[in-house]
Formats: sequence, structure tokens, C-alpha cells
Amino acid sequence: MKVAILAIGDEVIEGKVVNTNSSMIARLLQANGIHVTKHLSVRDDVEEILKGLDYAYEDCNVVITCGGLGPTADDLTKEVCAKYFNEEMVMYEDILKQIENYFTLSRRKMPNINIKQAYFIPESIIIPNNNGTAPGMIYEKMGKVVINLPGPPKELEPMLMKTVIPYLINRNDLKTLTKHYRLMNIGESDSEPLITDLYIKYPHVKIAPYANVGVIDYALTTTENYEKEFSKCCEDFVNILGEFIIGDWTLTIQEIIVKNLKDKQMTISIAESCTGGMLSSSIVDVPGSSEVFLEGMVTYSNEAKIKRLGVKEETLNTYGAVSKETAIEMAKGIKERSNADIGLSITGIAGPSGGTKEKPVGLVYSAICFKQNTYVFENIYGGDRYKVRQRATMQLLYELYKLIR
Amino acid sequence: MKVAILAIGDEVIEGKVVNTNSSMIARLLQANGIHVTKHLSVRDDVEEILKGLDYAYEDCNVVITCGGLGPTADDLTKEVCAKYFNEEMVMYEDILKQIENYFTLSRRKMPNINIKQAYFIPESIIIPNNNGTAPGMIYEKMGKVVINLPGPPKELEPMLMKTVIPYLINRNDLKTLTKHYRLMNIGESDSEPLITDLYIKYPHVKIAPYANVGVIDYALTTTENYEKEFSKCCEDFVNILGEFIIGDWTLTIQEIIVKNLKDKQMTISIAESCTGGMLSSSIVDVPGSSEVFLEGMVTYSNEAKIKRLGVKEETLNTYGAVSKETAIEMAKGIKERSNADIGLSITGIAGPSGGTKEKPVGLVYSAICFKQNTYVFENIYGGDRYKVRQRATMQLLYELYKLIR
Repeated sequence: MKVAILAIGDEVIEGKVVNTNSSMIARLLQANGIHVTKHLSVRDDVEEILKGLDYAYEDCNVVITCGGLGPTADDLTKEVCAKYFNEEMVMYEDILKQIENYFTLSRRKMPNINIKQAYFIPESIIIPNNNGTAPGMIYEKMGKVVINLPGPPKELEPMLMKTVIPYLINRNDLKTLTKHYRLMNIGESDSEPLITDLYIKYPHVKIAPYANVGVIDYALTTTENYEKEFSKCCEDFVNILGEFIIGDWTLTIQEIIVKNLKDKQMTISIAESCTGGMLSSSIVDVPGSSEVFLEGMVTYSNEAKIKRLGVKEETLNTYGAVSKETAIEMAKGIKERSNADIGLSITGIAGPSGGTKEKPVGLVYSAICFKQNTYVFENIYGGDRYKVRQRATMQLLYELYKLIR
Repeated sequence: MKVAILAIGDEVIEGKVVNTNSSMIARLLQANGIHVTKHLSVRDDVEEILKGLDYAYEDCNVVITCGGLGPTADDLTKEVCAKYFNEEMVMYEDILKQIENYFTLSRRKMPNINIKQAYFIPESIIIPNNNGTAPGMIYEKMGKVVINLPGPPKELEPMLMKTVIPYLINRNDLKTLTKHYRLMNIGESDSEPLITDLYIKYPHVKIAPYANVGVIDYALTTTENYEKEFSKCCEDFVNILGEFIIGDWTLTIQEIIVKNLKDKQMTISIAESCTGGMLSSSIVDVPGSSEVFLEGMVTYSNEAKIKRLGVKEETLNTYGAVSKETAIEMAKGIKERSNADIGLSITGIAGPSGGTKEKPVGLVYSAICFKQNTYVFENIYGGDRYKVRQRATMQLLYELYKLIR
């Protein structure tokens, strides 16, 4: 099975929105052992969509479209697909009722133009959409499968996960086995050399890394014929990289931390300098974090460090604002003054200016004050100002995770 | 002139990276009056790239490729383009020297594999790359133009701006006139109805909105024949939407604010509840913000609001933590306690839980304490937890901008 992804919409072609859909679909398919061959984006235009389908089916047997399932005149996707397969669409009464219900729930009356969203090619599979009014469609003819999904990622993703991926896995000639690992505290250029042997030792297992700031997601996939090889490969993978694995792909590090703290009924407070609130904000982004997060302080100036956290003037004069000593006093200060179980701190030089030979741009100290102990970390990060701050945030989250798990 | 964008790389096809390049290229071309017809992404594979070129040239005369200009064996873009045009590449001695220099500057010796980056089709235009070792190439034959750019956005963007866009504007049959406006405090669905007349009144001016969270960028473009119509249209646009325009596309609202505060030698401090540090972090993201930003406090709990900011217990009990009254006391508290010229505060219900009928999810109060005055704002934002927090942050930045400009 070979899949092409076809994004449809003028707003994509003109760069009015970043096309994150194609990447998301590709990533989730590949991670489930389904081979993606190419991505294509075309305008809301009948001829362009038809030409796009032709090009896609040249060497693919499945085309997943996204976008163009709305109620307005420029939403053409289903209509053009029906034309491509030389089929007439018909109205599905039960789907129309569901769409009407969707409007009723949000206390609106369904406008007449939405009726067209209840039309599908006969004998197609209809993909329910719980987050919008545009159901999707799976249709197959002469070995060619077309799958229509709506454009908004929040609607598309659950439809892909719940209906499309199971459909494709099931349709795949061979069942796919998958295992997902989320790693932190290691970069792709460090993890890859450690597992080169696995690529050779287990030729039927596909090992694919997906790197993000401070995180690498690994997908291991194979087909049912190689179940034994697969489980051995997973075992080896965990033996080699286990210390970096924080879980599968379902939870972020922040979510794991908030859950852990809730379970243990512990609270945290955070003092930040160079990250400027980014660390606090990443914790607050988890729903329910108010149960564990007490307060944050962005003590950017020396004065604020002294006044808010009780960092000693002497420490700042002797060692500087970016030093182990200051990081430690910041973490202790925020913990004591907020009565939290855990105090975190970050201080560093995010750049682009402010670096010296001894303390270069990217140098970051962070500290965790936990029970009677204080832990301090020194790191030098590459990248621009934003990247340095992001990496420092992710690294300290990881250190906290290690301590409390 | 019709342009197709062709991204090349397995990492794009498998969703290992989000393809932001195609969107960025499309946006910058469209904003300069150059028509983009389609986007396509293919694997690092000779046959796939050749088929992609065929499909792209079906109805486009310019193809911009990105990716595949590196030194390794899977970097095939230039080679395949030469093959497509039936040309042999030759080594450019001066370019090789530049690449060697690039390595010397970072104190490394150039590996031999990098020599291939100095090969180009004879009589092509070479696009300098100041941020990496892969120069780009513009080549034209029989009315077909191919433009090769490297994959890393930090290398690609300046090459596009400095060389490619001027080349395409110049090559366009008619010169393009452009004007860029950045708007805040208005959504696309509110701005568009206000300017419907302009679309009819000035049929030769293309008006294109590019929406982001809290910001809309508008590009107005036309060709030299319609200079008079264009300037009238721009005049009308500014008359209608002027109050929302914060500048062109060169500066973000944070950069404008930090610049303004520096010029006026004023300082700010920030107290946040639901945004959890996001507002402070967005200011700290501007290089040199340390000159104007004194400190931030993330007073998530009631206790912290009382202890850190002097919010009265009575206020919290009578009006609640999410109220005009609390927002005002937070802004006053942070201003006084940090001795800043300006105090900002945000408190709200980001969701998904915590909403009531009277105070629904998305309700946010913010306040600015400036000189003797305090300003307070009430808003209800849609979207998930992250979006609510982002919108509240952008809105308060805008209110601050209006006060200090």
C-alpha cells in the first residue's frame, strides 16, 4: 500500500496557513507502518484537484485528502472525487440529522448550505466527526482508495486516529506491529550511533526517529511475520536507550510531571531569569496544574533576585547572576518563600549578546530544591535566543521528572 | 508567471519535520504579487523528483525546490535538475573557495564530500548563502525556470528575500507594487466585511489577509500599470482599518513595545495568573528586553496574589480571583512593589474546566497601571486552553502598545 496526501485549499497554496496537516498525517501513518510516498497541495479548483488525483494515483493506491469539506461554494473535494470516479453522490438522512443535532447543541439553526455535507458516494464508508459538521468519506473503486478528511487539525486528527488508521492497518496485506517511545535528555545525533547495530541486526523492523526541541519520538514498526524479531528489537532498544525513555507518545513531560505531583500531593514553585516565564507557562498549560503549581517569579533583574528570592548581593557580585551559586539560592528562595515542596530555578545567557569567553551565550544554570537536597545543573545550548530558552526549559523539566518519578 | 514549490526530502514525506518552507515561500511570493499554483513534496529519489518536475511544469513555468543541496549521497536536487534539463554540471572554483572559507571561519577543514556543493549548470545564476555551505542555483531553459534552495529555513529565507524574489519580480512581465500592513485587535471575520467595497472598487489590486493568533497581516499588490489605483486603494485601506494597523511586517508587537519603552526610558513589570508566564516570556523573547523588563510574577494561587501583590483577601472573596477588581489590584501591586513605571496583569479562566454560567471558560480580565491611571479590560476568548492564553497575551500587548506609542 502506498499513500499520497493531497491538501486542498487556496489558503494553503498562498501560505495563509502553514500546512501542518500533511506532516501530521504522514507522521501518524509512518509510525503505524503505512508507507507515504508523496504530498501534494492544490488550489480549490476542479481542474487542479482532478490533475492532482491523476498524479497521485500514478504510483499510489490510496489518496488522503484534507480540506474542502465545508458547506460553501469553494468546498469541492467530495464533489470532485465523485466526478473522478464517475459516481453520483446521494443524501444520507441519518447523517443530515447528526449535522442538525450538532447545530442544535450549540443553540443554532442549521443553515441550508450545510445540507451538502450529508451527501456521499453510495457504498462509501462515512467517517464520523465529533468536533465539527463535516463527516469524512472512504471510497474504493478499481483498487483506488480515496479518503476525504476536513481541514481543521482538531477535527482531522481524531478521525484519522479512530477510523482511518485502523482501516488502513486492516487493509494492509499484512498486519502492522508498532511500538512508540518518547525520549528526552539525548539528541538524535547521540541516539542514532547507539542503535546502528539494531538497523542491521533487525532488518525487518523500521526504526524511525521524529525529533523535536528537547524530545525525540521513536516509532518501531514491522509486519506480523516478524513478531519475534520485533519483540527482540524492542527489548534491545529499551536496553540501550531505556534511561532516556519517558513513556510512549500519549503524554508530554509536563503532563507526566503534573500527574506525578498530584499523585504525591506535592507542590512546586518556579524562579526564572533567562527563560522569562516560559517554564511556568509550560506547566500552567496542563489542565488542572493549579493543584500543584503555587507560583512563579520572573526575576530578570539582580534587584528582583535579591528582593523576591533572597539571593545574596555578595553571591551576585562574586559569582555573577549566571552561576551555580545564584541558581541554588534562587531555587531555595522560591521554595522557602512560597512554602512549596519543590523549588525550581533557571538563570542563563540566552543571547544574542551578553556572552563572554568564560560565560558564552547558551550557558544556563538550573537548580532543583527538593526535600533537604539541592541539585544544580550546568548546560551550554546552541541555537538562537528562543531555542536556548526552549532547550533550558525542556532540560529542567526532564531533571525534575527524574527526581520525582 | 506561475510558480510551483517542490520540497524534496524523506524527512518531509515521513512527517519527521513539519514542512514550513513551502508555506513560507508561498506567503512571501504571494505577498510580492507572484502567483503560486501548487505545492509538492517528494522523497530523495531520482525518479520521484523527475516525475515531480514533470507534473510541476505541466502548468507552471517556474519551479522552486527546497532541500537536497547538502553534501551527502542522498542530496540529489541539483543533479536531478541537471539531468532533467539534459545538462552537465561543472565546478565553480570561486564558489569552492567560498565554501572552504566558510569552514575556515568555524575553524574546521572542509571535508572532501563538500566539493559537490560547488558544482552548477553552466550559465546558471548562483545564489549566495551566507548562513551555510549550500549555495542555490537559478537556471532557465526553453522557458522553464528552476530555482534550487537549501532546506534549513534560516538559510533559505534570506536567499529567497535577497536574490529570488527580486529576480522573479524583475522577470515578471510587469513590475509589482506591494504594501504590507500588520493589524491587531481585529479578527479576519471582522476586517473582511469592512473592506468588501475595496475588492470591487479596485479590481486590479489583490488584497490578501494572512491570519495568525491575535494578528492579521495584509498584503496589497498590483502591477505597475495600476499605480494610481494602487495608491488610492492603500489610502482607503488605511482610512478604514488604520486604527488597527501597528506597522508593516518587519516588527512584532513585542519588538515595537520594547523599542518604545527603551526610547522613553520606561520600565514594566508583569503579574500573571491564567497566562502563567506567557506574557513575561513573550517580552523576554526580545533581545535587549532586560533594559525595560524588571520582573514578572506568576501568582496562580490566591495566597500568592495576596502575599506577592497585596491583593486584598476581601476583593478575592467578594469578586473572585477572575474579576476586574482583582486584575486592577494585581496591576497596581506589581507596579508598586517592583518600582516599575508600568504594571500589567492578567487573570482569567483558561479552561477546560472552571467555567460557570456567569464566568464562562475564556473570560479574561487584564489591567494596565500607567502613570496615575489604571485601565481594565474584559474579554471572552474562544478556543482551547492554549489559545485562550495566547489570545489574552496578544490582546494585552496590543492595549499596552496603544497606551505608550
